[in-house]
Amino acid sequence: MARAATRPATTPEAGDAAERMLQILSEASRLFATNGYDGTSMRDIALACGISKSLLYHHFTDKDEIFAKVTLGSTRELYHYVFDRLPEAGPAERVRRFMTATGEYFQKYRWAWIASTTAFWNDPEQRRQKERMMWRDQYEGLIRTLIQEAIDAGEFRPVDVPLTGRLILSSLNWMHRWYRPEKGMAPPQIADAYCDMIFNGLVAPR
Amino acid sequence: MARAATRPATTPEAGDAAERMLQILSEASRLFATNGYDGTSMRDIALACGISKSLLYHHFTDKDEIFAKVTLGSTRELYHYVFDRLPEAGPAERVRRFMTATGEYFQKYRWAWIASTTAFWNDPEQRRQKERMMWRDQYEGLIRTLIQEAIDAGEFRPVDVPLTGRLILSSLNWMHRWYRPEKGMAPPQIADAYCDMIFNGLVAPR
Repeated sequence: MARAATRPATTPEAGDAAERMLQILSEASRLFATNGYDGTSMRDIALACGISKSLLYHHFTDKDEIFAKVTLGSTRELYHYVFDRLPEAGPAERVRRFMTATGEYFQKYRWAWIASTTAFWNDPEQRRQKERMMWRDQYEGLIRTLIQEAIDAGEFRPVDVPLTGRLILSSLNWMHRWYRPEKGMAPPQIADAYCDMIFNGLVAPR
Repeated sequence: MARAATRPATTPEAGDAAERMLQILSEASRLFATNGYDGTSMRDIALACGISKSLLYHHFTDKDEIFAKVTLGSTRELYHYVFDRLPEAGPAERVRRFMTATGEYFQKYRWAWIASTTAFWNDPEQRRQKERMMWRDQYEGLIRTLIQEAIDAGEFRPVDVPLTGRLILSSLNWMHRWYRPEKGMAPPQIADAYCDMIFNGLVAPR
């Protein structure tokens, strides 16, 4: 298969297909997040991956298929990633882990996250938007359940559950707007610090 | 001056120019927020206002001038709106008012807020983006000052000031993503409820 000139000749000819897929999705995410869907072509994606367009088409039918994998995939995976990491522990501790696991996921898949957040409100594909919304609702439903359990266990005050869930999700969802990987705390630490503030409040004990 | 057919004949011929400007900016905001900059034409704005294109051009040279007024204006005005409403009171009370005043501003100018938030990261005009960033920094600087004062006065625990500012701003900035005016609490009440949670924490007193 032909290779783009930008690719070093030393690259092994037979790469792992799964690895290759991940690389394509990751580079495509970065391009979608930076230049938008319309501003990204199959040629751009191939170039960024250092592969030929024909090899790219070998893996994906078109740009839309890549975009769908990035945006729908990252919303669905976020839910599973967080859910799978909830410990057998008290409900408040599980709320904390929900937050730090989301921070980890954001750190790992930041470009897919940004591409997906942007697409969330602009995706012209109604069906895909609905499916993503469904996973988003699952994710939001999970934090509400955990909050309710913490209230029932007497660990939290009887706060407004949906609004508390929104406060927690706002802190995590807004992170991509200001976070810069080259400086300061890592996202899981930021999530943990938010958790401390939200759990214990700002007001000094008397 | 000619009027579009959609305008009822009963409208007073000599409207207040300032009122007219506000109406144009408000309708344009809604269109920019809904259809984006590229998806909005001078014709669309004139139609939405029920005025002729020539009357619209009487007030504004081009679409870019309207867009600049909406996006730069709303960031600058947010700062002034909030600053002007801070009471002579203890620092924690001033933090609370910062939050509820932002909620009021959001409620009043929601479309301009949304148009401006979207444009914040996509505005091709570098100079304008810089100026908006400057007002945004003023606004963020204000909440940090208030938090620092609350710590110095012993009202807040010695929390991380920039991160606490980000938590507060995240809660307010994310609101436009989920808030629907037709149901639930009004934005100033939401801001007040967030404030209560962030001040006092979720954890039940022992």
